[in-house]
This record gives sequence, structure tokens and C-alpha cells, in this order.
Amino acid sequence: MTLFINDYSEGCHESILEALTKTNREQTAGYGFDPYCEEARELIRREIGCPEADVWFLSGGTQTNLIAAAAALRPHEAVMGAETCHLFVHETGAIEATGHKVLVIPDPEGKVRPEGVLQVLREHAAAPHMVKPRMVYISQSTEVGTVYTKAELQALHRVCREHDLLLYLDGARLGAALAAPGNDATLQDVAECCDFFYIGGTKNGAMMGEAMVILNPELKRDFLYIVKQRGGLFAKGRLLGLQFSTLFREGLYYRLARHANVQAMRIREGFAALGVRFLVDSPTNQQFILLNEQQAAALQARFGVDEQWRKDGDVCLRVCTSWATEPAAVDELLAAMRQIMA
Amino acid sequence: MTLFINDYSEGCHESILEALTKTNREQTAGYGFDPYCEEARELIRREIGCPEADVWFLSGGTQTNLIAAAAALRPHEAVMGAETCHLFVHETGAIEATGHKVLVIPDPEGKVRPEGVLQVLREHAAAPHMVKPRMVYISQSTEVGTVYTKAELQALHRVCREHDLLLYLDGARLGAALAAPGNDATLQDVAECCDFFYIGGTKNGAMMGEAMVILNPELKRDFLYIVKQRGGLFAKGRLLGLQFSTLFREGLYYRLARHANVQAMRIREGFAALGVRFLVDSPTNQQFILLNEQQAAALQARFGVDEQWRKDGDVCLRVCTSWATEPAAVDELLAAMRQIMA
Amino acid sequence: MTLFINDYSEGCHESILEALTKTNREQTAGYGFDPYCEEARELIRREIGCPEADVWFLSGGTQTNLIAAAAALRPHEAVMGAETCHLFVHETGAIEATGHKVLVIPDPEGKVRPEGVLQVLREHAAAPHMVKPRMVYISQSTEVGTVYTKAELQALHRVCREHDLLLYLDGARLGAALAAPGNDATLQDVAECCDFFYIGGTKNGAMMGEAMVILNPELKRDFLYIVKQRGGLFAKGRLLGLQFSTLFREGLYYRLARHANVQAMRIREGFAALGVRFLVDSPTNQQFILLNEQQAAALQARFGVDEQWRKDGDVCLRVCTSWATEPAAVDELLAAMRQIMA
Amino acid sequence: MTLFINDYSEGCHESILEALTKTNREQTAGYGFDPYCEEARELIRREIGCPEADVWFLSGGTQTNLIAAAAALRPHEAVMGAETCHLFVHETGAIEATGHKVLVIPDPEGKVRPEGVLQVLREHAAAPHMVKPRMVYISQSTEVGTVYTKAELQALHRVCREHDLLLYLDGARLGAALAAPGNDATLQDVAECCDFFYIGGTKNGAMMGEAMVILNPELKRDFLYIVKQRGGLFAKGRLLGLQFSTLFREGLYYRLARHANVQAMRIREGFAALGVRFLVDSPTNQQFILLNEQQAAALQARFGVDEQWRKDGDVCLRVCTSWATEPAAVDELLAAMRQIMA
Repeated sequence: MTLFINDYSEGCHESILEALTKTNREQTAGYGFDPYCEEARELIRREIGCPEADVWFLSGGTQTNLIAAAAALRPHEAVMGAETCHLFVHETGAIEATGHKVLVIPDPEGKVRPEGVLQVLREHAAAPHMVKPRMVYISQSTEVGTVYTKAELQALHRVCREHDLLLYLDGARLGAALAAPGNDATLQDVAECCDFFYIGGTKNGAMMGEAMVILNPELKRDFLYIVKQRGGLFAKGRLLGLQFSTLFREGLYYRLARHANVQAMRIREGFAALGVRFLVDSPTNQQFILLNEQQAAALQARFGVDEQWRKDGDVCLRVCTSWATEPAAVDELLAAMRQIMA
Repeated sequence: MTLFINDYSEGCHESILEALTKTNREQTAGYGFDPYCEEARELIRREIGCPEADVWFLSGGTQTNLIAAAAALRPHEAVMGAETCHLFVHETGAIEATGHKVLVIPDPEGKVRPEGVLQVLREHAAAPHMVKPRMVYISQSTEVGTVYTKAELQALHRVCREHDLLLYLDGARLGAALAAPGNDATLQDVAECCDFFYIGGTKNGAMMGEAMVILNPELKRDFLYIVKQRGGLFAKGRLLGLQFSTLFREGLYYRLARHANVQAMRIREGFAALGVRFLVDSPTNQQFILLNEQQAAALQARFGVDEQWRKDGDVCLRVCTSWATEPAAVDELLAAMRQIMA
Repeated sequence: MTLFINDYSEGCHESILEALTKTNREQTAGYGFDPYCEEARELIRREIGCPEADVWFLSGGTQTNLIAAAAALRPHEAVMGAETCHLFVHETGAIEATGHKVLVIPDPEGKVRPEGVLQVLREHAAAPHMVKPRMVYISQSTEVGTVYTKAELQALHRVCREHDLLLYLDGARLGAALAAPGNDATLQDVAECCDFFYIGGTKNGAMMGEAMVILNPELKRDFLYIVKQRGGLFAKGRLLGLQFSTLFREGLYYRLARHANVQAMRIREGFAALGVRFLVDSPTNQQFILLNEQQAAALQARFGVDEQWRKDGDVCLRVCTSWATEPAAVDELLAAMRQIMA
Repeated sequence: MTLFINDYSEGCHESILEALTKTNREQTAGYGFDPYCEEARELIRREIGCPEADVWFLSGGTQTNLIAAAAALRPHEAVMGAETCHLFVHETGAIEATGHKVLVIPDPEGKVRPEGVLQVLREHAAAPHMVKPRMVYISQSTEVGTVYTKAELQALHRVCREHDLLLYLDGARLGAALAAPGNDATLQDVAECCDFFYIGGTKNGAMMGEAMVILNPELKRDFLYIVKQRGGLFAKGRLLGLQFSTLFREGLYYRLARHANVQAMRIREGFAALGVRFLVDSPTNQQFILLNEQQAAALQARFGVDEQWRKDGDVCLRVCTSWATEPAAVDELLAAMRQIMA
């Protein structure tokens, strides 16, 4: 049964395996102080046009997010994010276990907007009886597949500057956003708007790995201590560096994301033509569809797709493509849906 | 200017000062292992009809709540409570700083109800990606002045038992609830329904002090280690014990709370007769009133009352009485409001 | 049986009870924003000659220490202190529960010395695999009763400045040190050498209360948030302010400490004349004596004294006087020891 | 320059790369719920003769240790270990950042012994003012290369049972211990003596990966929540499972460790014959040698070896072999040392 449950069901792009194999018996320093990490850092710095950025390689999103909070926040400082955001919903309270409250803002498109930020600030003015909002957490693409425009990122950047807030972007699916049809925010724009952010590898063709990029000089200090203390310092750090150098040397990162998006757009258009409703308008590799219970059951009997919730007769399913999705599998999915909707 | 801003604006009931003065030069063991703490424990155990209960004396509500969480929960376990609850809103993220997420349930009367508990459980079923709800936090009286009935407490007790949840009651204003007109839940009922709870002294005539009562045997183990570790172990513990023995020896705890409630009922009835609207129907010492901006400003010019929020022209003010509120001060307040509303 | 087990066996100096009684029914703002706290702050600022100092009132030593660590340190930063120090030995891992390692230095007099600090720095150079030493914790007087000289405090101040370390002084028994025969370090000297420190009330005649004094401007920011978050923000803060204004208005703090020391010196001299050995040479209210098992048992049968350890036939007992120790009780103790040693 | 600085300077054994390549495009469930993890679990359970064991795959030692502490301990419970142990010295306070104190025991061979455990218990009896020792942490092989015998493990097991302590073994270099000449403790013995332990992959030929094995039923409950919360839940969990199934399917794990040990024994014997002194007698892949400063400098000029410390003219160097160490490189090292010592 073909799985459309997520974008990490397969291994990794073959060029990564080749790079690992080719360099396998070389001896290098550990913990990311090797030439492959250095090359990956340089490629990323060039990509974002920021030679001063610090770049560190970590192995997963929850780990990266909790390290970001531990490194950036004092104990009474809180994170704010969209009500649907991964850090709030799906990380088993990792931020709270690191000692920080997460304040959430409802939004139909899963985005944080300047008005929401200001509202949270107004509601947390009763110092010292309330936490102090300090870090704005956004996901690009979001958990419902939407993408912040360049103007939206800049507006968040401004409101953060005005209110001494840090802007942090979770780029677990940053590739999907960068390669989305209509997207106008480049990696360089992301770097200009954020204090720190990460470029996700795990969900875009790496075995594992997230590249944390730190722009704000204050956040650079002693960052690696925090990485080590939280168990995120990879002994064989070069394994992460090699993956990112492979992904960024010749644009592979973008090509893989584009592939996933293209397959998702085929699904979106095909489903829409059949009358399937969508939760939101997503230009990326995650499509959230609404079916009735019978239709949902029929689809789930033939393909791996994840149920998100059911309410008032509607079942919301996530159909997720990846860098490795076979076009033929999408053909089959479309054919199956045609039968179901008939 | 007379303050109606809270129930801890004054010192303490004079009989407490007398007890402290009378025993002042006695030498006793520290940390609560003295005869006065022992007497207070026995009085409380008798009051709740539970000779096996553990009773420990702490010095403030936030401290007591965070110690409760630290003692009762494993790292991935979460607290749930009403959206307006003190632990979520007004304790500067103390629970999160202790490592635990707080999951909230909206309710117009500031209560947790069994359906809300079940809803939270349903929404957090995606183990291990979500926290595990484990402790239900309720306040009696609530932050908006309402009181759980005996049937409501029993229903929460049942739903907690059925789903392996701990029921914890914050009794910062337990006196106000016990002495409220129409209340049918005794201290014994509270003890029968809860795994642990605390009896608040600070807001009912003590200098400071909260009595943590532990019924669930599993929660008793090593509790005092946690108290010490979180900075809650009073060196001169007898000062807390003496206050609770004074409060419970001859019913002073109830008399003081009744006084505060009686003055609050005078305000409620007087204000209602003048057409003042109320946020909720509160039978206790906190009354939340809705005025227009002009009326609110006029009232605040003459009395200390706390603004809660303003919205669509309405200003919500809290008028709070205490064990020490002078009836004459209430007369003045009523007279002033008569002028304002005229 | 008379207790010499500690300096918090009695209540508080009567003038404190009088001040509390006199102001009891007054209404004031909560949380330390009242005129009595303000007066106490001013008195302390004048005493240390530092009008810019921040002063906050807390209710116990462990609480104060853990709040200091939470406010001052990033997660990877560690505290260093003497191997015998309270924070390491007798606070149930409060600093570690706040997330920080404590690095200890052995010393026969219970002191931290510049060489020890440098040694710890040398041993923790392997960044990022080791914690980063950041805060030096000292107790004045120390846990074995000794007192840092002015020159010793200045030397620690210098080594801390040179290595970007914070110097924090636990003044649970600061009164005993200031009033010790031979002491040359004033409260002003303490303030000049430390980044922050606290003046202990609990062990010098207050009911409870410690005054945290913050000199380093960087440590002032948002301090009260941390106090609230850790459960240390007293609702009726004026109770703490009133005690410190009483203690510092006319030198009561020093007189009480001198009384305790004078009684301790009587014990020291009397015991020494009888041939009793001492663990260290202490000029303060804690005397650590070495007896054989029989002698120790005989003493403990007649007075409350605390056993510290036993080794190779020696039993180490602590004899502790307080602001309330009756000279007649010391007479009895000396007489008893004369019999025992005979 | 050939590196003898550690056992993770190279990639991984080629059969792991082959297994990853072969299965690369397969789709599987995430988070360790895939057939490769299942196979690896079964192989490990068979190896230890314990079909009931829980086995989870994590990606690094510090991560595994802090998750173990978070899962097993209440806040006031402490870990004890050898003074030289990795968890205490080289994990940037990860255990303390998780909230727990580490109590250490000096030992020339880097081992915890029953007498040491009992001593720590005696010294921490002052409840509730001290932490409660609860978990004994040992490394096999130790940080100085020594190996616990079966009798030593059993003795620790007994003392832990008698005093309600948990025994946890850090097996970062468990392969080296199992394959050491003279070793009499099998993997099955380890499983019989410990409450939980991990089998290290990173330092024995895996890319990365540690297999946590839980024997004590109480420790199994909700373990994966903790893994997720601390950022240790690998999305593509199968990558870890595949490595362990490769390592354990046909004894590769033992063969790789034996290779490293054989090369280390060649160094040990060769060096000893040249009069080089050793810190301890290590039968495993880490050899700690003592040279004078000139000799040390000469060796470090030609090979990568890590300096541990220098004292009184002695320099202590660690010479570390791995699964990938070339015999020819050892020949060169021996030749070089012959010249240096001549």
C-alpha cells in the first residue's frame, strides 16, 4: 500500500548515500568541526547572503526547537505561535519541559499575524504575574501547508523589532515553501527577517538533519554548549554536514522540494476537479481534504493517509507527498479518488 | 482611599498575632516538626474526617501549586484547568517552569466540567507526540467567584477515577466557598473528592500560609523533599502551624470567610438594585461588575478596585472584600455607586 | 531541654511583633509595593551606600538561592562553591532542579579562595563538553562559622571580574559575620565586592525573610518575574518589609547578631578552657566541637545539639546560639560540660 | 595524519551503508514502528535472553543518558557515578539540566563499587534536606578503559536491590567490554544485573545510534513520551533499526569491537615493551599512557592523540583505536614510539 502519510517515509536521496559511501573511511574531527560541515556552512551562508551567520547541524525538529528556546530565553520568557503549530501540539510539551510557556493564537491558515502578536502582548502586560512574551515561532510552510509571503514575513519582522521580540522560523518544510508556486520569499528573505531559523533536511530528502542558522549576534554566544547539554551534538557531525553540502551544492534541495510540490499540485487539481473540498488553499506538499466518513474509509482502505480529525460528518485527511513520491502512485491515487467520488 | 482590590490588603486576624506573641520565646524544632504544626494537622484531619491525611504547611499559592505539580507528575504529564485559572494566567508560567504543559478549557463560570476533561483527553490521544493529561486543576471558589457544588465535585472525581487522572483543588479561597450562601460542599466533601488540595490561609485572615492536604497515598511519598527543593520549607514552620491551629481550633476560618462573603453580598444586592450588571453570579467575596468607562472611572477615583479588562465600551472591575472589610466602608461604596449610577 | 541546635528555634524579636501589631489593620498594596518595604529598601541602600541597588524581600534561604541562580544563569552555566556549602549539601538539589550544576572546592575553613576558582576554571575548559563556570557562591559567615576578611572578599571580587564570573554571597548568617570579633568587612564592603547578595533575617531575629540586594545592573532586569515564577512573591509583602525596617532602623540587626556571638564566645572560651577541641576557629554563633562518643552522648542527654558526623572515635557536634539565647542557659551548658570533661 | 583520538572518526561499517542503500526507497512507518526496528529489537532480545525487554533506538549517548534520568527519576532523586564518569564530566551538565544532582565517587579504575554506593547513601541520610540517591550509573567499559567483571556487576546489582536503587549501564563502549580479553560478563549478564542499559552503536561501527534496553517493568511505562519530549524520537527511525539489525544479525557488533581491541592490545604490548607507563591496566580500545612533555609533543606531532591532563611533568595521553583502525597505522605508531623512546 502506497503511503501518503508524510514526507519521511523513505530513506534519502541517493546522492547522499553516494557521498557518505565515498567518504566513509576518511578520518575527521568530530562534533561538526570537519571539512564537510564547513563546506555546508559556506554553501548556506552564500545562499542567504550572510557570511556572518552561524550554522549548526542538528538531527531533528523537536530537538532543534527546544534547543532554540533553551538558548534564547530566560526562564520567565514565553514563546508565541499559531494554535496549530507543531511546537505547541506535536512535540510532547518539549518547550514546557525546557521551562517555557507557549502562548497560542488561533488562525484558519495556521499563521501568526502582527495583530495576533500585539494581542498577546496586550494580554500579558500584568508583570510580574504573567510570563513575558519574547519569541515568535512561525513555521514555513505551516502545519496546514500554507506559505508566508515576503510581505508577511517583513511585517512580522517589524512588529518583533518594535517590541523586542525574537522571530524564529521552523523550516522543517522550508523547501516546500521556497519551491511553492507563487512563493515570493527567498531563503535570503527568510534570513533577513528572522533572528534565527532552521532549514529542514529530514522532510526534504536527507536521512536526517536540520541546519540551524543564527543571524542575531546575541543568540550566537555559547550556542553549542546548549546543543551538547540537550543531547543534540552529533559525534559524527560530518554525516550531517555531508548531507547539507550535497543538498545545497547544486540546488538539489530545491529540486527535491519542487518534485514533492508538483505531485501535490497534481493531487490538488485532480481532487478539486472531482469536487473534493479542502481545509485551506495549500500550495505545498501537504493537502488537507474533507471527505464524508464513507469516502474517507474507502480512500484509507487503499492508501496510507492520515486522519486529522472528524467533526459533523466531515473527516479531514492529510495527503502528503515527498521528494520520493512516484508520479505513477499519484496516478493511482487520482484514479482511486475518481471511483470514490463517482 | 479604601481598597477593595483583594483579600490580602490587611495584616492578619488579631488572634493570630496574639498566639504568635504568647509563644514567641519558646524553642521548638524547625521545619514543621513542632507541636503547633502537629495540633494544626490534627484539627484539619478531624475537620475532613480523614486521620490518614498528610498535611504540610506552605507559604503561598503559586509555591503550593508548583510543588504539587513537581511532586505528582512525570515530565510528560500535563495539567488541565479552566482558561481563566490562576495557575495558567497569573503564576508567571510556574507550572511550565516546573516542566509541565497546562491545557485549558474555556468556561463562562471559570469551572472545569467532566465534558471538558473528556474533550481534552480525546484531543491528546496521539501518543507519544502529545503530552499526557494527568492532573485536573480546579479552584474553589473559582477565579470569577463561583463555587462548585457537591455534585459537580463528585462528577469530576468520577471522571478522574475512570481516566486515571489526579484531582487537585486550589483552595486559596476555599473559605469563601465553604461559607458561601447556598454552598453544599463541605471540607469533608472536598477531601473525599480530591487526591490533594490546599486550604488557603493568606486570603482568609492568616499572615501567610496554605495547608496542603494529601489524601492519595501515592502522592504522600517523599513530598517534603519536593517542598524543600523548591524553597518552600519554612525554617520556623511553627509560625504556619500556629496560624492554622488558631484558624481551625474554634471555627475562626469559617467566621472570617463568612464576614467577607456577607459584605460582598451587601455589595452585590446593593449594586444589582442600582442596575449594575455582573459578569457571573458569584456568591463569594469577589464580585465582577460591568460598568461603562465613565462609571468605572468615577468608581476608581474613590475606591481601590481592580480593572480586569475593557471591551466594546464595557469595563469589568473586580470588587473584593476580605475578613477585615469594615461594614462602614461598604456603606460608603454603596452610597458612591448610587451617585454614579444616578 | 534547652536547644542549641540552630538559630531559628525561637519566634522573632518582640519589636517586630509590635510593628506588625501596630500596622495590622492598615490596607496596603501587595507584593512588596508598600511603604514599609520602601522604607526597608531605603534603610538598606543607605547602609550599603548604594542608592541604585535593587532590594527584594524573600522568605527563605533555599528559595533565595534558587531564584538567584534562575535569574542570573543561562542553562549551561554552573555555580561553584565550597564543598561544605549549604547550596550544595543541604538544599535538596535545588540548584540542580533549577537546571544548573554545582562545582565544589574542598577547603578546611569552608571558604572559596581565588586559587580554587582558577582551578575550577582550568578543569572546565573543554567547551562545549563541560559546563561553563559562571557564578561563585560564598556564605558569610560560612557553614562552619568562619568569616571572610575584607581582603579575602576583595580578592574574590578581583578574580571574578578578571574571568567574567558573578560573585554571589549567601548572607543567611551575615549578621553573625558583621558582628564577629575581628571582622573587618562591613556591609558596604560586601556590596562593593558582590554582584548580588542577601541579608538574612530568619536566622537573626526575624520571623522569616531575606533581603536580596542586587548591585550588578544586568542582574536587575526582570528579577521579580523570576521571584513570582518560583513561588517567592509574598502576597502580603509588607510583612517582610516591616521586619527589615525594624531590624535596620536603629541597628537592631547588629545588636541581635552581637548577642548571639557573645554567647557563642562564652561557650568557645569556656569549652576551650576545659580542653574541648574545635573543628575550626569560629568567631561566630556556630561552634563545632569534637568530643568522644561518651562525652557527646552525655552532652546530648542534657541539651539539644546537633551531631554533624562521627569518625575514628570523634563526634563532631554543632553548638549554635541565637539572638534569643539566654545567658543563663549558657551558664548551664558550661557547668554541664565541666562535669562531662571532669 | 592518522587519528587515534577516538572511535568515531570514521563513517560506519560498509555493510550498514549497503543495508541503507538496499532499502532506501522503501516506504515504512516512522518513529521506530517499522520492520527493521522490529527485527533489531528481536535480535537484541534474543541476545540477552529476555523476550520481555523493551528496546528503543536513540541517536547519541548524552541524549540517551538524559532521557534515562528523565524517565526514571522524580525531581529530588539523584544519580551516583564514578568521579571520572562521562555523565558527570563530559555532558555539559545534561543531567542537572534535566533537574537531577549527580553524586560522585572517586576510584582509580573509574568504577563504582558497592562500598562507594553505601558511603553515598550514608552521607545523604538527612532527609528532606538532601537529595535522595536513586540511580547508580556505571559505564562498561569505563571512561578509563577498564571492564567490570561479572562478579562486580552482580555485587552492584545486589546492593541496588537491597537499597531500592536503579542500576543503569552506559554501554557507549559496551562492545569493547564484551570483546575484551579476559571479560567474563556477557550481554545477558548485563541484562540480568541492570534495570536498564544501552548498547552503543556510534562508537562501534554504526553511523549513529544507541539501543536502550529496559528490563525493569516500572521503567517501561510511557518511555517513548520522554524520548519525544527530549527531542530523541527519530522521524526515520528505521535508519537506526537497520544499523542494529546489521550489527547483531551475524555478530558484526562483536567482530568490530574485537578488531578495535586487538589493535589496542598491540599498542599496549608494544608500548609497554618500550617502557611506556600506563594510567591503568585497560584491556579495551582506550589506552591511557604517561609520557614526559618532550615525548608527548613528539608523538602528537605525528599522530592525532588526545591529551587528558598534565601534572608534575607527566602528560597523560589517550590512544584510541576503532573498528576501522588499520593494522598498518598501528605499525607506524609503534615505530614512531620506538624512535621517541630511544
